[in-house]
Amino acid sequence: MKRPSLADPKRLSLNTATTRGRWGLAEAIEGCARHGIAGIAPWRDLLADMGVDKAARAIRAHGLTVTGLCRGGMFPAASARARKLAIEDNLRAIDDARTLDAQCLVLVVGGMPEGSRDLEGAREQVLDGIVAILPHAKAAHIPLAIEPLHPMYAADRACVNTLSQALDLCDSLDRRQTGALGVAVDVYHVWWDPDLEAQIERAGRKRLLAYHICDWLVPTKDLLMDRGMMGDGVIDLKRIRGSMVEAGYSGFHEVEIFSKENWWKRDPDDVLRMCKARYRAAS
Amino acid sequence: MKRPSLADPKRLSLNTATTRGRWGLAEAIEGCARHGIAGIAPWRDLLADMGVDKAARAIRAHGLTVTGLCRGGMFPAASARARKLAIEDNLRAIDDARTLDAQCLVLVVGGMPEGSRDLEGAREQVLDGIVAILPHAKAAHIPLAIEPLHPMYAADRACVNTLSQALDLCDSLDRRQTGALGVAVDVYHVWWDPDLEAQIERAGRKRLLAYHICDWLVPTKDLLMDRGMMGDGVIDLKRIRGSMVEAGYSGFHEVEIFSKENWWKRDPDDVLRMCKARYRAAS
Repeated sequence: MKRPSLADPKRLSLNTATTRGRWGLAEAIEGCARHGIAGIAPWRDLLADMGVDKAARAIRAHGLTVTGLCRGGMFPAASARARKLAIEDNLRAIDDARTLDAQCLVLVVGGMPEGSRDLEGAREQVLDGIVAILPHAKAAHIPLAIEPLHPMYAADRACVNTLSQALDLCDSLDRRQTGALGVAVDVYHVWWDPDLEAQIERAGRKRLLAYHICDWLVPTKDLLMDRGMMGDGVIDLKRIRGSMVEAGYSGFHEVEIFSKENWWKRDPDDVLRMCKARYRAAS
Repeated sequence: MKRPSLADPKRLSLNTATTRGRWGLAEAIEGCARHGIAGIAPWRDLLADMGVDKAARAIRAHGLTVTGLCRGGMFPAASARARKLAIEDNLRAIDDARTLDAQCLVLVVGGMPEGSRDLEGAREQVLDGIVAILPHAKAAHIPLAIEPLHPMYAADRACVNTLSQALDLCDSLDRRQTGALGVAVDVYHVWWDPDLEAQIERAGRKRLLAYHICDWLVPTKDLLMDRGMMGDGVIDLKRIRGSMVEAGYSGFHEVEIFSKENWWKRDPDDVLRMCKARYRAAS
């Protein structure tokens, strides 16, 4: 396999989950600019706090690229009314992504409604949800990036759990690969998959809309909030990046680290410095 | 899909992990006999404590079936010497399984050696390990049951993480389906897999060597020790059992619950009563 040279520092992006609880969006935008990080991926709660128009102006003023808006999705629900509300929320997310000129809207599709054991039914509701929002996303020129989540989140966060499954959805809804529908590859969720390289290759340039990096720690102490900094865990990041590049991906590397007991406790400027260093050395 | 009627109580088995810390193997054997549970699956630490011959006699005296010995595997290691030791340990496990007249030896194949990021290499070492022990297992008439573990254990416990991957191993090492090599299907590890039903069907009667039940709790508070009792979580157990039966499985249902903060704190007799009740009502 061809090994790309050192990660290009101009291709680094900060997902605001990485500085959660420390920085609002305005501070994160300024932080990225200060540290020469060219991309940013805001979460919607921070975006709402700052205001979308104000955020868009600040992002443009600093010349940052929005590598993705986190997040749409969360489609399954117990009632038709709740599913309709979820779709309306996704339509608003698409509008916000448009205002930010985001490269994609990331879809964390949702798990089973409370009390349900119908995983297949939830998966059908996800399909229906994407069908319902895809025309609006196309009209807004916002690609939808389905993010398969680690199987440990299948019950309550996302019932799309492998790249293969996400790509099957893409193929069924966007057979001609228009660019309107693709995947977000987050190493944390997919690194274990025996089929990973083949599915990245299958996805190809047109489906690979985002690439998220962090690391898997051993031991992992919390299912949600114990992700590692690149290089501190067991994921062969360079190998996966190689597969992405081979498959035609030339976009940003977005650092997304949920880390309640470690990185979220540190000075965010230190965290950004470490992101840059590890991105170069270990990704 | 054909729905089998109520689970047959004569097909229940107790994996001794379910009463860990409370009962030694002698007590577990007597507990099963007392509660009319016809199967037992001992872990090797308890077996060593009791002594294999003594355990075999007690199990026979109570007319119990050993539905599996837990566990062999753990093949990958950083040095050739350590890999050789692992293989020798597996050969002893096969002998113990033979002494117990166990229906299979469960293989938890192992993760990456400490400090390694070479998941593919670990998977190759697993293949090599099974190759090394399969002749002895055949000679002893002990089927090897590869247990795919949940992807959240890929790094440190088992780098075989889907039924598909386990069956690929079976096909490459036992193409003619002699019965010497198959899989242990544990709902906790595989329930999320979009490909589960297809792979159970692919496995068929000759590869389906064991069936382990418990439940996936929401939220799950610990990656290892927070499994739920059947019916307390989100797994559609009846559906999966239906798939197993459709595919030709007619063996035991083995209850294996790691539960540090709940079931391990309770009176094991109460736990066994609950296992029986939930096996009937929710599995």
